[in-house]
Amino acid sequence: MIRMNPAKHVDSHMNELVSDLQTLIRQPSVSAKNEGIEECATLVQKILKKAGVKSEILRLKKGVAPIVYGEIKSKQNPAKTLMFYNHYDVQPAEPFDLWDDPPFSGNRKGNKIFGRGATDDKGELITRIKAVEACLKTTGDVPCNVKFVIEGEEETGSEHIEDYLKKYQKKFSCDGVIWEFGYVDAKNRPIVGLGMKGLLFVELSAKESIIDAHSSLAALIKNPAWRLIEAVKTLRDSDGKILIKDWYKEVTPFSKNDLEIIRKEPFDENDFKKEFGIKSFVGNKKGLEAKKALIGGATCNIAGFVSGYTGDGAKTVLPGSALVKIDFRLVPKMDPKKQISRLKRHLKSKGFSDVGIKVYHGEAAARTDSSNPFVTQVKDAADKSFGSSILNVSNAGTGPMYPFVEILKAPCISIGSTYMFAKIHSPNEFARVDLLKKTTKCMCLIMENFGKN
Amino acid sequence: MIRMNPAKHVDSHMNELVSDLQTLIRQPSVSAKNEGIEECATLVQKILKKAGVKSEILRLKKGVAPIVYGEIKSKQNPAKTLMFYNHYDVQPAEPFDLWDDPPFSGNRKGNKIFGRGATDDKGELITRIKAVEACLKTTGDVPCNVKFVIEGEEETGSEHIEDYLKKYQKKFSCDGVIWEFGYVDAKNRPIVGLGMKGLLFVELSAKESIIDAHSSLAALIKNPAWRLIEAVKTLRDSDGKILIKDWYKEVTPFSKNDLEIIRKEPFDENDFKKEFGIKSFVGNKKGLEAKKALIGGATCNIAGFVSGYTGDGAKTVLPGSALVKIDFRLVPKMDPKKQISRLKRHLKSKGFSDVGIKVYHGEAAARTDSSNPFVTQVKDAADKSFGSSILNVSNAGTGPMYPFVEILKAPCISIGSTYMFAKIHSPNEFARVDLLKKTTKCMCLIMENFGKN
Repeated sequence: MIRMNPAKHVDSHMNELVSDLQTLIRQPSVSAKNEGIEECATLVQKILKKAGVKSEILRLKKGVAPIVYGEIKSKQNPAKTLMFYNHYDVQPAEPFDLWDDPPFSGNRKGNKIFGRGATDDKGELITRIKAVEACLKTTGDVPCNVKFVIEGEEETGSEHIEDYLKKYQKKFSCDGVIWEFGYVDAKNRPIVGLGMKGLLFVELSAKESIIDAHSSLAALIKNPAWRLIEAVKTLRDSDGKILIKDWYKEVTPFSKNDLEIIRKEPFDENDFKKEFGIKSFVGNKKGLEAKKALIGGATCNIAGFVSGYTGDGAKTVLPGSALVKIDFRLVPKMDPKKQISRLKRHLKSKGFSDVGIKVYHGEAAARTDSSNPFVTQVKDAADKSFGSSILNVSNAGTGPMYPFVEILKAPCISIGSTYMFAKIHSPNEFARVDLLKKTTKCMCLIMENFGKN
Repeated sequence: MIRMNPAKHVDSHMNELVSDLQTLIRQPSVSAKNEGIEECATLVQKILKKAGVKSEILRLKKGVAPIVYGEIKSKQNPAKTLMFYNHYDVQPAEPFDLWDDPPFSGNRKGNKIFGRGATDDKGELITRIKAVEACLKTTGDVPCNVKFVIEGEEETGSEHIEDYLKKYQKKFSCDGVIWEFGYVDAKNRPIVGLGMKGLLFVELSAKESIIDAHSSLAALIKNPAWRLIEAVKTLRDSDGKILIKDWYKEVTPFSKNDLEIIRKEPFDENDFKKEFGIKSFVGNKKGLEAKKALIGGATCNIAGFVSGYTGDGAKTVLPGSALVKIDFRLVPKMDPKKQISRLKRHLKSKGFSDVGIKVYHGEAAARTDSSNPFVTQVKDAADKSFGSSILNVSNAGTGPMYPFVEILKAPCISIGSTYMFAKIHSPNEFARVDLLKKTTKCMCLIMENFGKN
């Protein structure tokens, strides 16, 4: 069998990759607003087809975003199966006015391609599709079986991925999963990530007067914004410690091995601070403590707060309602359901039974054991394509890794092209073309390493 | 001289009053947005002219809303001058979607006329113009000199009224002022109001990351919404007591006479609670304590709070900034400038030097002595036109009464047609036609009483 070089194919076909990515970006697919979801799924199928991958649309029930499922069997090694897990949906692009170009422009400026989803996750997805395409076009085969699971609800918390994994457990069976993204640090080193934090996203609300009232009546009518501030203030101290009873009860400390990996992991505090224009970290953490917080710290973040008049100028109004959106990052062993009960119990015990709680979703944290051979296979590929790479015990972010680990019983590793400062989830999100290229080559090597072992 | 009856003229010309009010409502004049201000001033002049009152536009400087000034001399009694103080600007109409009809419709449904400004203050203004018109049309004279001072910045805090009063001190000289509004309670009894609270409107802001960040970074990047919640929480206890050092320092207790008036003043707690759909008052106040709070209590109200993602669904974002709008109601002897310094000192001393403070405006409280003969003249007119009336030491709301009392040295009394539950400053604001009629007749009697004494 003639082995041509997939990497060279990647090099010479970057224009196509960029063009396909631009097409993907230009199709908005905001799951939070159910905007363009079906259209984007169809578009992903087209791009898979062009790459030589057969795909189908999997559905759970009406109102649930479909999964685009692609599969290609290996002739040379049909015994091992690698899954690429990605998502075609994106975060809302608001606030629109902070974007330099329109949010779904896909405009390329030099090494950068701009737009919501440019990196997260359309940029990542395209590298994997193009890696498979490179193998097929150069060797007529893939080094291992490949399965694509591309969902459409990741940015709203992958509410149905667990149901999909259960329903299609057999179809999805595999020996390893390459996670939907992978970070690249400030020095262009890719992170080989072995875990994800969990997430609990809730909305707390307070109501009082049935109408917005004149603020002169604040002498008598209670203010729901005050009420919510008082309630929320009991959740966390100013150093970031969560004050809900038993919140940390099941959390175990890092293992010796984990700590060793964490110590080795570089983290340039100054670069990080400079990027965000900040002077110090939460709780004034530094060095190892800062890294430990990012990798294994539970957080209670206010993602949104709104009450009353928020426009320009002064309006003397006493709002009738107030609303806060909070996301808690969970660490391994925290059970989202248990944490919700604890939050509810906390508010009740602090006298805030009147505060409404809406749970958007809960997701447990997951980690892959660093002794799994899959780790070495991925790290080797990353080292070769990027020059070096960094092992990471857990990403600070969240993804539905837990049900993959639980249901598919497969190790999950994140590796990809997401530049740490690519402004994902923010205005002016971009993808770097150089990283897209290296990552595509890395995916080729991962398939090769995985098939060989 | 033939004395015809102005009251009868009012009765038979209500359609004109309603129609002129609708015309006024249909001209939006939102001072907070500088929307329709000049147009509305011109419209007010037209309506004054139709009533037989000469008017002129007074200006201070560019960018300041003009005052519409109207004047008519009395032939029978040129020695005494009554001023009607009103405003032609209105509050912003947001949130638009909570209005049953468009906010500036002026639609009449039975006894009600709907629209922003229907009561506050276009409804009040029209009664005074039409009262003067009724006198002129029936007697060819007014019982005393009348001056109209109609400003365009009341809803943003009458920032320039003091400068206007100083500049036009001579032109505006008078012996008594009828304030821009007057409340009518749930049992249709008008309130003869002798005072107004002051107001301090500020905006506090916190900033951290220069960009909205992914909320997974909340383990390290500080959240400005948290920061602001912590800062704001130090301002007030849950019973409404303001915790800023020396905030109440200059406040004197009610006099024996004031307390007597307060005791006599009816206040139906249940009606009030029912109207707003609430179960209890701030600090669980009841009876006399509730009345004292409304009449003389200082408040710290959150008029608006905004940070991060406030749309539908979940967005895992770490906001870069947070903003809270707060209005403090001030009581007599509180100096707004002093209170601003105290607020600044408080934030600094509590460790919140990083929290930004923008002062929108400050205004002192004012009260007219209940022994002034003007009080009896107004109360008698109100008793006659409404059947009975109620004396009130101070309104819970704010107006620029302080500079009138200080500069013009004239007693100020509020009396008018503002039904207590007319939803002023809220969606579906309305004016009651029956009250507009009674108030117009009351204004005729006030001029008569004032001229005679």
